[in-house]
Amino acid sequence: MEIFERLESEVRSYCRGWPVVFNEARGSHVYDESGRPYLDFFAGAGSLNYGHNNPRLKTELLDYLIGDSIVHSLDAYTTAKRDFLKTFGEVILAPRGLDYKVQFPGPAGNNAVEAALKLARKYTGRETVISFTNGFHGMTLGALAVTGNSMKRGGAGVPLGHAATMPFDGYMDGRTPDFLWLRSLLEDSGSGLDKPAAVIVETVQGEGGINVASAGWLRGLAALCKEYEMLLIVDDIQMGCGRTGPFFSFEEAGIEPDIVTLSKSISGYGLPMALTLFKRELDVWEPGEHNGTFRGPNPAFVTGTAALTTFWRDDELQRETVAKGELIGSRLEAIAEEHPQTGAHARGRGMARGLAFTEEGLAKSVCAEAFQRGLLMETSGPEDEVAKLLPPLTTSREELEQGLDIIAESVRAAVKVPQPA
Amino acid sequence: MEIFERLESEVRSYCRGWPVVFNEARGSHVYDESGRPYLDFFAGAGSLNYGHNNPRLKTELLDYLIGDSIVHSLDAYTTAKRDFLKTFGEVILAPRGLDYKVQFPGPAGNNAVEAALKLARKYTGRETVISFTNGFHGMTLGALAVTGNSMKRGGAGVPLGHAATMPFDGYMDGRTPDFLWLRSLLEDSGSGLDKPAAVIVETVQGEGGINVASAGWLRGLAALCKEYEMLLIVDDIQMGCGRTGPFFSFEEAGIEPDIVTLSKSISGYGLPMALTLFKRELDVWEPGEHNGTFRGPNPAFVTGTAALTTFWRDDELQRETVAKGELIGSRLEAIAEEHPQTGAHARGRGMARGLAFTEEGLAKSVCAEAFQRGLLMETSGPEDEVAKLLPPLTTSREELEQGLDIIAESVRAAVKVPQPA
Amino acid sequence: MEIFERLESEVRSYCRGWPVVFNEARGSHVYDESGRPYLDFFAGAGSLNYGHNNPRLKTELLDYLIGDSIVHSLDAYTTAKRDFLKTFGEVILAPRGLDYKVQFPGPAGNNAVEAALKLARKYTGRETVISFTNGFHGMTLGALAVTGNSMKRGGAGVPLGHAATMPFDGYMDGRTPDFLWLRSLLEDSGSGLDKPAAVIVETVQGEGGINVASAGWLRGLAALCKEYEMLLIVDDIQMGCGRTGPFFSFEEAGIEPDIVTLSKSISGYGLPMALTLFKRELDVWEPGEHNGTFRGPNPAFVTGTAALTTFWRDDELQRETVAKGELIGSRLEAIAEEHPQTGAHARGRGMARGLAFTEEGLAKSVCAEAFQRGLLMETSGPEDEVAKLLPPLTTSREELEQGLDIIAESVRAAVKVPQPA
Amino acid sequence: MEIFERLESEVRSYCRGWPVVFNEARGSHVYDESGRPYLDFFAGAGSLNYGHNNPRLKTELLDYLIGDSIVHSLDAYTTAKRDFLKTFGEVILAPRGLDYKVQFPGPAGNNAVEAALKLARKYTGRETVISFTNGFHGMTLGALAVTGNSMKRGGAGVPLGHAATMPFDGYMDGRTPDFLWLRSLLEDSGSGLDKPAAVIVETVQGEGGINVASAGWLRGLAALCKEYEMLLIVDDIQMGCGRTGPFFSFEEAGIEPDIVTLSKSISGYGLPMALTLFKRELDVWEPGEHNGTFRGPNPAFVTGTAALTTFWRDDELQRETVAKGELIGSRLEAIAEEHPQTGAHARGRGMARGLAFTEEGLAKSVCAEAFQRGLLMETSGPEDEVAKLLPPLTTSREELEQGLDIIAESVRAAVKVPQPA
Repeated sequence: MEIFERLESEVRSYCRGWPVVFNEARGSHVYDESGRPYLDFFAGAGSLNYGHNNPRLKTELLDYLIGDSIVHSLDAYTTAKRDFLKTFGEVILAPRGLDYKVQFPGPAGNNAVEAALKLARKYTGRETVISFTNGFHGMTLGALAVTGNSMKRGGAGVPLGHAATMPFDGYMDGRTPDFLWLRSLLEDSGSGLDKPAAVIVETVQGEGGINVASAGWLRGLAALCKEYEMLLIVDDIQMGCGRTGPFFSFEEAGIEPDIVTLSKSISGYGLPMALTLFKRELDVWEPGEHNGTFRGPNPAFVTGTAALTTFWRDDELQRETVAKGELIGSRLEAIAEEHPQTGAHARGRGMARGLAFTEEGLAKSVCAEAFQRGLLMETSGPEDEVAKLLPPLTTSREELEQGLDIIAESVRAAVKVPQPA
Repeated sequence: MEIFERLESEVRSYCRGWPVVFNEARGSHVYDESGRPYLDFFAGAGSLNYGHNNPRLKTELLDYLIGDSIVHSLDAYTTAKRDFLKTFGEVILAPRGLDYKVQFPGPAGNNAVEAALKLARKYTGRETVISFTNGFHGMTLGALAVTGNSMKRGGAGVPLGHAATMPFDGYMDGRTPDFLWLRSLLEDSGSGLDKPAAVIVETVQGEGGINVASAGWLRGLAALCKEYEMLLIVDDIQMGCGRTGPFFSFEEAGIEPDIVTLSKSISGYGLPMALTLFKRELDVWEPGEHNGTFRGPNPAFVTGTAALTTFWRDDELQRETVAKGELIGSRLEAIAEEHPQTGAHARGRGMARGLAFTEEGLAKSVCAEAFQRGLLMETSGPEDEVAKLLPPLTTSREELEQGLDIIAESVRAAVKVPQPA
Repeated sequence: MEIFERLESEVRSYCRGWPVVFNEARGSHVYDESGRPYLDFFAGAGSLNYGHNNPRLKTELLDYLIGDSIVHSLDAYTTAKRDFLKTFGEVILAPRGLDYKVQFPGPAGNNAVEAALKLARKYTGRETVISFTNGFHGMTLGALAVTGNSMKRGGAGVPLGHAATMPFDGYMDGRTPDFLWLRSLLEDSGSGLDKPAAVIVETVQGEGGINVASAGWLRGLAALCKEYEMLLIVDDIQMGCGRTGPFFSFEEAGIEPDIVTLSKSISGYGLPMALTLFKRELDVWEPGEHNGTFRGPNPAFVTGTAALTTFWRDDELQRETVAKGELIGSRLEAIAEEHPQTGAHARGRGMARGLAFTEEGLAKSVCAEAFQRGLLMETSGPEDEVAKLLPPLTTSREELEQGLDIIAESVRAAVKVPQPA
Repeated sequence: MEIFERLESEVRSYCRGWPVVFNEARGSHVYDESGRPYLDFFAGAGSLNYGHNNPRLKTELLDYLIGDSIVHSLDAYTTAKRDFLKTFGEVILAPRGLDYKVQFPGPAGNNAVEAALKLARKYTGRETVISFTNGFHGMTLGALAVTGNSMKRGGAGVPLGHAATMPFDGYMDGRTPDFLWLRSLLEDSGSGLDKPAAVIVETVQGEGGINVASAGWLRGLAALCKEYEMLLIVDDIQMGCGRTGPFFSFEEAGIEPDIVTLSKSISGYGLPMALTLFKRELDVWEPGEHNGTFRGPNPAFVTGTAALTTFWRDDELQRETVAKGELIGSRLEAIAEEHPQTGAHARGRGMARGLAFTEEGLAKSVCAEAFQRGLLMETSGPEDEVAKLLPPLTTSREELEQGLDIIAESVRAAVKVPQPA
C-alpha cells in the first residue's frame, strides 16, 4: 500500500474506508489480494447493476477482443456500435415509444451531462439551468455548476454560474405546496430568475442521500417544464439501467424527458461509456460541435449490447428488482425501528436504498462496521448521514438477506459506541 | 448504415469522411466489414501509439479478464492499479527525476484537464488561466474555456471565462519577440490581465494544425511562469506517450511542468484512461474533492502497465520515433515542393506531422483522396487547412513509405480538381 | 417636442405618459410650459421628499453658489462636505446610536449599491449576494444582478451572476414559514447555494410594487444574517430619508444593518448625491480602491445639510409622515372597496403607498386619467399593476385630499373603459 | 479635519495628498479655508474645462434656480433639457455631420459607459468587449471589467468577464505592427477570442498615464472595427469637451465612432451629468430598459447649454487649447531635458499633458512639492509614474507659465531628495 501513499494523490477517497487491495470479483462479491471475500452492496456506485464480470457479457467481450475487433474508433462507424444502437433501439426505445436520438458524448457520465447542458442551451438560446438541492451531476465545470455539494463546488476554484437551485421533492416542509417557489419565479417577470433553458433532475438522488422524488412530483415537474417551455433533463446515470426497477427510472411516473443521460451501468461490465439521449427535434448539433477521444469504446458497446439482450428483452429483471427492493426496504425499516433513538429511517426505491440517521457520524460508523464484517457499502447525503445500498440487481435473495443481517449487526455495534462530535 | 442515420445524433463527424463500417484492426491497419484494409495514419487521434490490438498488451488484457480480475473499482486500491503506479513510477518518473503525484481524474482527457485547472486555481487562489491560440483541451466547460476553436466554443451556450488567450510560438510575425505581449501584461499593473493561476500549453498543437513550439520558446515560457509564479500545465494528452519521441513531449526542451495531463495512448490499447500529474507540493486536494465513476478502469491499467513495460524500459521506441519522424518530414517536404502553387509546407515533430496548404479546401480533398486509396488521415487547424499524420509509432518503415506514397498521389489528384470556394 | 423625438434615445420613458414639457416647480406642484399646474405624487421617484425647490434649502444653495464656493472637488476636503458630515453625524447617526463610516461612492444610487456589493465581497471574501423577488437596485452591471425585473436584466446583454434570488416577505403563500427556503439552503451543505457574502433588501419595495416587509420579517432576516455571518445591506435609496416615517426605513424594525445605501432625497433638492454607510469594522477599503468623478458634489452637500437641519432636528416630520400615510392608506382602502371587481387593494407604509389592481392594465389607465386631471403618479410592480403614490412628505393635507379625490375619480373613469387585453 | 477621519471611509484619496479644506474657487484657482490660493492644474480630473464657477455659466444657473425652475425631472421633458438638446444638436452635432441620438444614462461617467456596453451587446447579440491596456472607464461592475488597473479590478470581489484586453498604441515595442495581435485573433477562427461586440477606447488615456493614441492608430482601429463588424466606442469622458482641442477628441483622426460617452465637463460647472451618444440605427433600446433617478439634472443642462453657447459657437477655444497645449508641451520637454537621469519625458495632446519619470516615486514627490508651492496636480499611470496636468482650458498664459515654473522648481526639489524604494 506504500506505493499508493507515495504516488497517488490525496484526492483518493474510497480506499480510505476500505484499506485493502482488491483483485478479483464475481457477481456480488469482490476479493482482496489475501483472498478475503466482500459482499458488494456498492456495485461501483451503481455501475455494476449486473454484478461483477457477468459471464454472458464476459464471453462476448472476450470473443470481441480475441478476434482483434476494433477497440478504439472515435465516432467512426463500427459493427459493435451498430449492434449496440440497433439493440438499444429495439429493446429499449421502441417498446417504450421513445423517439430519441443517441449521442456518444465521451466515456464518463459528466460528458453526458455536459453535452445535455450544451444542447439545451443551444436549442433554447437561454443559459440558466434549474437544478435541485442535493443533486449530483459530475465534476467537470458545467456539471459541477448544477451539483449541490459545497465541498465539491468549492473545488472549482471559480464561481459556478448559469444555474439556479430549487427545492427537491420533500425538501421544504410538508406544508408547502410542490413547485410553489419555482412556479412563482417563472410566473413573475420581476422575480430575478432569468428564463431557464432547462431543468436537470434525478428521480432518486443517490449521492444526495437516496432522496426519492414521487411520481406525482415528477409529473408536476414535467408539466411545469412544458408550460414554461423549459427542457426536462433526467440525469439517469445512477438510477437508470434498471436500478429502480424499470430501465429508465422515470418510467414509473409516466413522463417523457426531453433529454436523458445514461452512463455507469450502460456498458454492463463497468467499462467507461455514456449516452446522451434527446428528442429527435432537439438534434441541432453541428457535426463535431461536441467531440472527444473516447466516444467509440467498442468493448463497452459489446458488453452493453449483451447486457440489453440478456436482461431487457423481458420484464423479469424489472419485476425482480422491485420485489428485492421491497425486501430490502422492509428489512431496513425493521432495523430503523430497532434504534428509535438514532432517528434512523429507511429510504429508497427499487434497489436504491438507504438508512438515514439523524445522529451525526453514525452512518459512517455503520459502514465501517459493515466493512469489518465483509460488506461494502458507502455513505451519502450532504453530511454523510445515510448508509447507502446499491447492490447489484442480480444479487440473490440469500446474499441480500446475508448483507442485511450484517447491516443489522453493524448498526447494533455502531450505536453502542458514542459517536465523536 | 441506416441505423446510424436514424439513431445517432448529427454531432457525429469522422464517419462522414469515412462512410464505411469498421470491424477489425491489427497494428497499423483497420478493416471495414467488407474486409477492405485501411492503413491508419490517424491512430485514434493519437490514442493508438502502439497500434491496434498490440499482441503483448492483448495477452495481458485477456489474462486479466479471463481470470475474473476486478474491472471497475472507483478509486479503491486494486492490484492492477498498484502495478500501474509502480511501473509508471519506475519506468517513467524515476528515470526522469520527476517527483510527481498521480491523480486518476476520470477516463477522458477532459477529466485530466478539468482536474488540472481546478487544482491550479485551488493551489494559487487565482482564477485566470492563460491558454494559447489554437490550443485544444477538451469539450467540458472548464476545458472548453481554454480551447481556441470558435465553433466548439460556441457550442457551450454560455460565455466561457476565467481564461485569456495568448499567441502560441510563431503566431505573431517573426519580427515580434517571444512573450513580449504576455510579459508586458504581467509586468504592468494596469494591463487588465488579472494575475493568472496557470498557463496551459501543448508542445505541439495537434488539433490546432500541428503547430510546433520550439524548445527555446518552451523554456522561455517555463521561465516566465517561474518568474510570475504561474503554474505551468503541459497538456500532453495527444503529444505525450512518445508521440514526438520521448515519453513526455516536453523532455526535449528540458523543462519540468508543474502539472501534466496524459490520456489517449496511456492505456496503450485505446481504452479510456487519463492521468493528471503534479508536483508533490501541489497535492492540496481534499479526499473526494474531485471524484467520478470511472477512475478505476482496471483493464486500462493492465494494458497501460504492459505498454510501459514493453516500450519504455529502453530508448528504442524513442529513437525509432525520431528517425521515422524525420523520414516522414522529408517525404512531406518533397511533396510540398512538388506543388509550390498550393502553398504547401510540412510541419511537425517526431511522428506528429502535417502538410499545410494555403489553398482553401485542399487538405480536405487530400484526405478524401487518401481514403479512396485506403489511407486514413484527418485534417486539423482552424480552417481544416492541414492534412495531419499521426501514424502508430509502431508503423513499419514499409508501411510509412506506402502511406506517404498514397499521400503524394492524393495531393496530385487533389490539386488537379479546382477547389470549391 | 420634435427635438426630443429627433435627438433623444428611444429609451426615454416617463415623458411617454406625460407628453408635456415641464419648466417650473414649487413644493408639491410642477408646471408645464403652458403654465398648467400638476400635483406631484411622484416626487422624482422619491427624490423630492421635501418638495420641489424648498425655500430654506434654496437659500442655502444660492448663497453657496453666489459666493463662488467650490462646486466640484472629487474627494478632497471641503467645508461643505465637513458641514454635511458633521450634521449627518449629529442629527442622524448619533441619536440613533449608529457607528457608521460614510462613503461618497458617486452621485447615483447605483454607485452606492455597487460600492456596497464590492465592500461586502471584499470584506467576506465571498461572492454570492442574496437579493429578493422584485427587488430593484439599479442599472449598472453589479446592481442589475441583484435586481429582479426581467426586462431590465435582459438589457445587460451578458449573464448576471454572483447572486441568488429569494422570496420577499409575503411572496410565497401564507402557509410557508418565513425564511424556510433560505434557511434550508444555508443549513444544508448540499443545497447548491454557495455561502453568501451578503443579503441586499429594501424594507418597502418601491419599483417592485410597494411591497412592504413587516418588522418581524426584517428582524428575522437580520437574525439569519447574523447566524450565518452574512452582511445585511439595506438599500434605503427610495425608502430612506423619511419616506416611511423615520429617517431610515429600518428603524421601525429595530434592526441595525451592516451596510446602508442612501441617495434620492439625501440632497433634499433633487441634486445627484449618494452615500454608502457601513459599520466601522467593515471599512477595509484601500485609498482610491473605489473612485469616481462626482464624489464631491458640494451644492448637494449644502442642500443636504440644510435638509437635515430643517427637517430632522426633531420628530415632527416623522410624526406627520406617519399620520399622513395613514390618511392616504384609509382613502386608498375606501377607493379599493368601491371597486371590488377590480381586485383593488391598498398597500404601503408611511408615505409610500400603492393601489394594486388584479385587472390587467387598470393601474396604467388610472395614472393616465390622473394625469388628465392634473395629478402625476406612476405605476410600479412587475406587470405595472400598482398605481404608486410617493408625494413629497411636505405635501399639505389639503393637497393630499385633493390628489386622493383625483385618484378616486380616475379609478372610476378607468374602470368604465374596458381594458385592452 | 477630525470629522473626516472619524466619519469618512478610508477609501478617500485626493485629500491625502492635499491635507487642507477647500472652500472657494474661481477660474483656475481654488482656496482653502485659510484663504490660501492654489493654482488648479487638476480641474476636477477634467471636469472643469471652463474653470471653476465660470461667471457666464453661473449667471444662467442662478437665474434658473432663483426662478424656481424644475430641478429634478427624471426623464420627463423639460425646457432645460430641450434647450440643451437643441444647442447640442446645433452647436456640436450638426456642424460635425454627426447623426447621433442622445441618451441621458445617469449622472456619472460610469453610467454612460454601462449604457454604451449594454447597447453594444444588445445591438450585436455578442458579449465580448475589447478594451486596452491601461484603459479607465469606471468603477461599476460593467465599466470595471474594461478597466485595466489591477487594484481597482481587485475591488470588484468577483471575476470580471466578457472583456479582452489589447495593446494600446505604442504598448508593444516599436517593431511590432499595429493591430497585428488583434487582427490575428479576429481572422483566426481558432484564436480563442469570441467575436467581439465592440471596442472601447480613449484617444488619450488620462488615468492610464497620458498615453496618446496617434491619429493613424485610431483610424486603423476604426477600420478594423468596420471590417470585423465591431462597434467602436470612444470613451470621451475625460478627453472630450475640448480637452485635446476639438470638442471631441477623435475629430483630429477623422473617425466617426458608433458610440461616444461624455461626462465630466459636459455640464461645464462640475455638476454631475453624462451622455451616451450613438448612431441613429443603434437606438434599439426599449423605453425604460435602462433607467435611473438622476437622468434629468436640469441645473446641469442649464450650465451645459451655457457652456456650449459660450465656448463652442466658434473655434477660438479649440485654437487656444492647441496653442496652450504646445506651450505646456515645450515647457515640459525642457524640464525633462534638465533631468536626464530621472528618465523624464513629456507626453500629451492639447491640454492633457504629463511628465513621466522612470525613477520610481518621483512623480509623486513632484506633485507633493508642487502642492507645497500652491499648485494642484495629480499623478497617473499604473505605477503613479506620471505627473499629470489637466489645467482648465480657460487658464491664462500667465497662469500656465506660473504653474509650469512651479513644476520646474518642484522637479528640481524632488530630484534632490533620494526616493524611497
